[in-house]
Amino acid sequence: MNYVASDLKVVGTRPIRPDGVDKVTGRAVFAADTRAAGMLWGKIKRSPHAHARILSIDTSKAMALPGVKAVVTAADFPDIPSEEAFVGEGPMNFRDLALNVMARSKALYEGHAVAAVAATTQEIADRALELIDVQYEVLPFVIDVEAAMAPDAPVLHDDLFTAGVTPKPEKPSNIAKVVTFKKGDVEAGFKDAEVVVEGRYTTQPVHQAYIEPHACLASYQPDGQVTIHASSQGHFMVRAYTAKLLGMDMANIRVNPAEIGGGFGGKTLIYLEPVAVALSKKAGRPVKIQMTREEVFRGSGPTSGAWVEVKIGAKKDGTIVAAQQVLKFQAGAFPGSPIGPGCMCGFAMYDLPNVDVVGYDVVSNRPKVAAYRAPGAPITSFAVESAMDELARKLGMDPLALREKNAAKNGTKTHYGPVHQNIGFTAVLDAVKAHPHWKTPVKEGQGRGLAVGFWFNIGGESTATVHVNEDGSVTVATGSPDIGGSRASMGMMVAEVLGIDVARVKATVADTASIGFTHLTGGSRVTFATGMAATQAAEKVVDDLKKRAAATWEIPVEAVEWKDGKAYPAGSNAGAFEPLDLAALALKAARTGGPIVAEVSVNAQGAGAGFGAHICDVTVDKETGHVTIERYTAIQDVGRAIHPSYVEGQIQGGAAQGIGWALNEEYIYNTKGQMENPGFLDYRVPVASDVPMIEAVLVEVPNPRHPFGVRGVGEVPIVPPMAAIANAIKSATGVRMPNLPMSPPKVRAALDAAG
Amino acid sequence: MNYVASDLKVVGTRPIRPDGVDKVTGRAVFAADTRAAGMLWGKIKRSPHAHARILSIDTSKAMALPGVKAVVTAADFPDIPSEEAFVGEGPMNFRDLALNVMARSKALYEGHAVAAVAATTQEIADRALELIDVQYEVLPFVIDVEAAMAPDAPVLHDDLFTAGVTPKPEKPSNIAKVVTFKKGDVEAGFKDAEVVVEGRYTTQPVHQAYIEPHACLASYQPDGQVTIHASSQGHFMVRAYTAKLLGMDMANIRVNPAEIGGGFGGKTLIYLEPVAVALSKKAGRPVKIQMTREEVFRGSGPTSGAWVEVKIGAKKDGTIVAAQQVLKFQAGAFPGSPIGPGCMCGFAMYDLPNVDVVGYDVVSNRPKVAAYRAPGAPITSFAVESAMDELARKLGMDPLALREKNAAKNGTKTHYGPVHQNIGFTAVLDAVKAHPHWKTPVKEGQGRGLAVGFWFNIGGESTATVHVNEDGSVTVATGSPDIGGSRASMGMMVAEVLGIDVARVKATVADTASIGFTHLTGGSRVTFATGMAATQAAEKVVDDLKKRAAATWEIPVEAVEWKDGKAYPAGSNAGAFEPLDLAALALKAARTGGPIVAEVSVNAQGAGAGFGAHICDVTVDKETGHVTIERYTAIQDVGRAIHPSYVEGQIQGGAAQGIGWALNEEYIYNTKGQMENPGFLDYRVPVASDVPMIEAVLVEVPNPRHPFGVRGVGEVPIVPPMAAIANAIKSATGVRMPNLPMSPPKVRAALDAAG
Repeated sequence: MNYVASDLKVVGTRPIRPDGVDKVTGRAVFAADTRAAGMLWGKIKRSPHAHARILSIDTSKAMALPGVKAVVTAADFPDIPSEEAFVGEGPMNFRDLALNVMARSKALYEGHAVAAVAATTQEIADRALELIDVQYEVLPFVIDVEAAMAPDAPVLHDDLFTAGVTPKPEKPSNIAKVVTFKKGDVEAGFKDAEVVVEGRYTTQPVHQAYIEPHACLASYQPDGQVTIHASSQGHFMVRAYTAKLLGMDMANIRVNPAEIGGGFGGKTLIYLEPVAVALSKKAGRPVKIQMTREEVFRGSGPTSGAWVEVKIGAKKDGTIVAAQQVLKFQAGAFPGSPIGPGCMCGFAMYDLPNVDVVGYDVVSNRPKVAAYRAPGAPITSFAVESAMDELARKLGMDPLALREKNAAKNGTKTHYGPVHQNIGFTAVLDAVKAHPHWKTPVKEGQGRGLAVGFWFNIGGESTATVHVNEDGSVTVATGSPDIGGSRASMGMMVAEVLGIDVARVKATVADTASIGFTHLTGGSRVTFATGMAATQAAEKVVDDLKKRAAATWEIPVEAVEWKDGKAYPAGSNAGAFEPLDLAALALKAARTGGPIVAEVSVNAQGAGAGFGAHICDVTVDKETGHVTIERYTAIQDVGRAIHPSYVEGQIQGGAAQGIGWALNEEYIYNTKGQMENPGFLDYRVPVASDVPMIEAVLVEVPNPRHPFGVRGVGEVPIVPPMAAIANAIKSATGVRMPNLPMSPPKVRAALDAAG
Repeated sequence: MNYVASDLKVVGTRPIRPDGVDKVTGRAVFAADTRAAGMLWGKIKRSPHAHARILSIDTSKAMALPGVKAVVTAADFPDIPSEEAFVGEGPMNFRDLALNVMARSKALYEGHAVAAVAATTQEIADRALELIDVQYEVLPFVIDVEAAMAPDAPVLHDDLFTAGVTPKPEKPSNIAKVVTFKKGDVEAGFKDAEVVVEGRYTTQPVHQAYIEPHACLASYQPDGQVTIHASSQGHFMVRAYTAKLLGMDMANIRVNPAEIGGGFGGKTLIYLEPVAVALSKKAGRPVKIQMTREEVFRGSGPTSGAWVEVKIGAKKDGTIVAAQQVLKFQAGAFPGSPIGPGCMCGFAMYDLPNVDVVGYDVVSNRPKVAAYRAPGAPITSFAVESAMDELARKLGMDPLALREKNAAKNGTKTHYGPVHQNIGFTAVLDAVKAHPHWKTPVKEGQGRGLAVGFWFNIGGESTATVHVNEDGSVTVATGSPDIGGSRASMGMMVAEVLGIDVARVKATVADTASIGFTHLTGGSRVTFATGMAATQAAEKVVDDLKKRAAATWEIPVEAVEWKDGKAYPAGSNAGAFEPLDLAALALKAARTGGPIVAEVSVNAQGAGAGFGAHICDVTVDKETGHVTIERYTAIQDVGRAIHPSYVEGQIQGGAAQGIGWALNEEYIYNTKGQMENPGFLDYRVPVASDVPMIEAVLVEVPNPRHPFGVRGVGEVPIVPPMAAIANAIKSATGVRMPNLPMSPPKVRAALDAAG
């Protein structure tokens, strides 16, 4: 059933977050906080070369070091064949994942794992790493996406033949895949165009920069049973991937979800867990591995860097008649950049008759990319929204008006297939127009930029249980690691359905042995899909409670109504009984059928797409090239905000990360293909003084496919910032910055070049 | 549905135990193995007096000791009113429980908790205990049950008035309750009797002597959320009782079940958890408390010691015409001895026309008793089965024949109410008659004893979930701590229902936040009740799998059959399809409705009663009085043995504990009411050299109220040993030993007295 907004008592309020005290007092247990008796420390030896054949690995000296209990190399892992497999909803090539976890014949990037040790102390483990003798044949490498596409580029994989083209290429190359979307006739469209803008844009790989480095604790029993404590965006993912890479039954692995200190997509695959299990198996003791920040940078996935070309043609009234895009995305050392969403999201905000998009997934000698908030969308939108700004300028048109003119509406068919339904993009644009920020004239010396963004959001498989305790308090458990506040939102949705005080409902994250399969926390799916499971489980409990009240009163269940946490006799034949509240029914549960429980699994469909618009005012220091964000407003259709503070936090966080991506973040490589800034001193994420208070404005156009109207909110806010800031810089200085990051040296250089 | 024995493929086999490797390699995590960052050590100060008024407690010196972070006394706990409450299925007077956990105005036994500290080290905590200054007014005390019933006995509780008598007594006394059962006319019966035997028997309190002392780790957050790791026979019990004693919502407490190193009934209530939570709340840090063995003896519950009078009258052919029993059970410092089952179980094996049983629940200055395997039954049966042996001798009748003559059968109405149904007592007696041990003549110089025993077994509330993993392996979770092998039996029952290899099914125990309410592991209910929930959950999964196969094949679900782990099209209209096995259906779960899950809760009724008969051969060393058990056979109706090795283990363990109870175990008190043997050196439990190989013979009379025919097996085997051994000693020496333990000095004295 769908709940009516005016009836809501809990949803939309702002109770204190359930994990707050735990975290601010330092009591929350992250993966690095776990311990086990007899635990060893695992460490990973990493390639210093960007590209090298592994000729031999001699571990004998390391094994001889007192305190070293196990050494593993790729020889200790099954050789996984290349195979695109589905685990839950997610496709994954496990051969690639296995080779990324532990290099077999070649090291494909600086930082690629080549061996690992387990020792009684971290110091001994470090020393043992030095004693592992790896002989390499250093090979030519390639770092940048366009260089990797060149015909004479060093080829990373002999067996990689471009997919998505006919005929199948004869030679292997670094181009893993070509994606094409076509709608209408783009050539004819451009012929009709009265104004055309064209541009080339580049973005740098940026890291998700979660505060908590990857960590895990694994214990392998001689009978093949494994326990893992890990911080991840999906402990079922950890179980599935670890099982696959080690050739184990999933039931033999129990993964306990630790608290997670940020993921943003970067913890949707595994690095350490199979290594820790292999070490534990060899050593016969539990093994803990935790990455240093340097390892996080060198060894785990940032999002793609990219090269994007955009061409847009319009009529003089602003009607876009043709749009074209070529995208080249770095995948890192293995295929798998977010080129698909990159090709989908750039033009998805607009109702366009003719579109042509081509995307390339390109490997190079960098860490394998991982998802990062709305993967691909920020890159493609940086290009498109910069170009839209240029188009508005060329047309002499207000940038908001241009977007209103071409805005996607319900019924708009996207260039990649689906028809938009129940979307709130025009409501977002209306909110921009009505907002004081937009209505306030730009201050002297400042520039203002506008950009919009889109993310489709996902649903998928989730499981939730609702248990009524003997005293009428309630426990809800799900399989979704809580990154963005899902314990709060699950508790609130369940409290709303049951009609009780949210303080009496506690939500937890259950381990893989205790709840049904649940897909990753990511893609902005948890409040939608897991929330749907939790809501349905609570509704099942209400049905059960009504049955028990009916049995108690000896009246038909149809004559029982559930309202405000109580069963009432309803209708003329129901008879007169005192209402029975949840606590009263809980107390009698043994006598009315046993414990009151419900478990519901769903494969949720109908995740509502999300749209946002960001307004940004900047000043640019012409001496230094430093850009100051003076005012920032992020407006977004959130469907229905279960707990508005968390939603605002998601929007603020996304915008702040976008600001970092826009202005500072980049990987600096030396001539040997080695990263030179693998730490937060040199890889500069935004700090508090870099961002103003970001005003988050929640537009609520409910998603009818969710009982409370939820749509995903976590992805959209990172999409518009780069273009919004670039457009603001243009507005402030007249200079277009097509290459990220728009760091002081680059801005200064651009200003100089523009005179 | 009920499963047919001949179809069973998994049930009845003996797969390797799932927790075995974990335990023999020392990796199993018991409560004492848990750690938390910043953890403090809690210790409990205990009364040195058997009975004393607490005049004052000065904690200031203890608090001033560096390293001490918190001190608590009863003042830190809510004052719980006296109220018999139901939590789940169990009645509990929480006032008494609260006072037992922390004495308020009086210390009622030596070892009674009066204060507790939390400090950074165990040594500091010990020193702090010494610095707590408790001023006592020492009061007269009473230790023994008959002395406690005397009119001039020191009264423990001013507000304790005997229940179960009319009119209500005017004065408080130590007699908490009188239980009476009457059937027929016992006076008339004795008038009809041609032979009468009469005797007085005493038993000593004996401790459950689990190897693992009580331990817990509790963490209280400032927002009122609590996490507890505890070893117990029911983590839901720990949650409920802790919540009650601290006035908390159950949902605010999450209890994680640790492995448990034995309970035998002794871990069905709490001692430490509320204290650890209160200390953690005051200190703001996690607190761990673990008892020493001495504390286990002085502070936790043994079973009752008792005084029992039995009178049985029979015809010359052995037909019993009247049976009478008076039982006086020590409850320890608070009411709650197992006097009820004591009054029920003694005569429950027999079909008797006239019965009169009176029982007294009596408090004294000893630790509050706790359950111990078949609580009350071993005591009452020691008396009755000794008297039956005397009766056989007086009649000149074979003791087996006497029992056969009077054996309870289906339809026998017990003296306490219920009518026996589906029982296997005569099958057990048949097995005795057929057994080589019984058929072998008693060896020269030895004596042989026979005794039988009964336990009704219980059902009640349990919850289980069955989850099919993405690879077709299966996880089953329950809320029952695994003491006697429930992980093995749950996995086997689920594998049987699903028709898959048991190695692909893993059973776990889920925490209180992850599964529905489940009553204690005890009373011999888990394989029955939790097994019923697990079986039903697996059946629900099979129904779901059939639906998914039907949807895949686009045929009606009625045309799908599940067999040997596969869905088959069945019937003439089903069409021809390749069977779909569990793994194939699991792989497609996302496309056929999402994760495959089922959670089932039950309040199981119809636990089948259990009967056993033990045969024991002994030699008695007339010099020392030492009794050697030469041969021991335990025959029992187990309904259906899911995993026969565990069932045999239960029977062997119960018999071994009975042997200890019979021959050695006792509490030795000094004149101040202090226990003088609180350790395994002086409190002598049987060691390997004390017991022969105990042959366990499984008689299988299925319980039709359980899908696999299960009846509880863990209680019965401790019931017959004491009488079997006493009867064997009589047979060997001609001397009747009516007082336990039959330790060397007592046997020697009896032999001497008999000349």
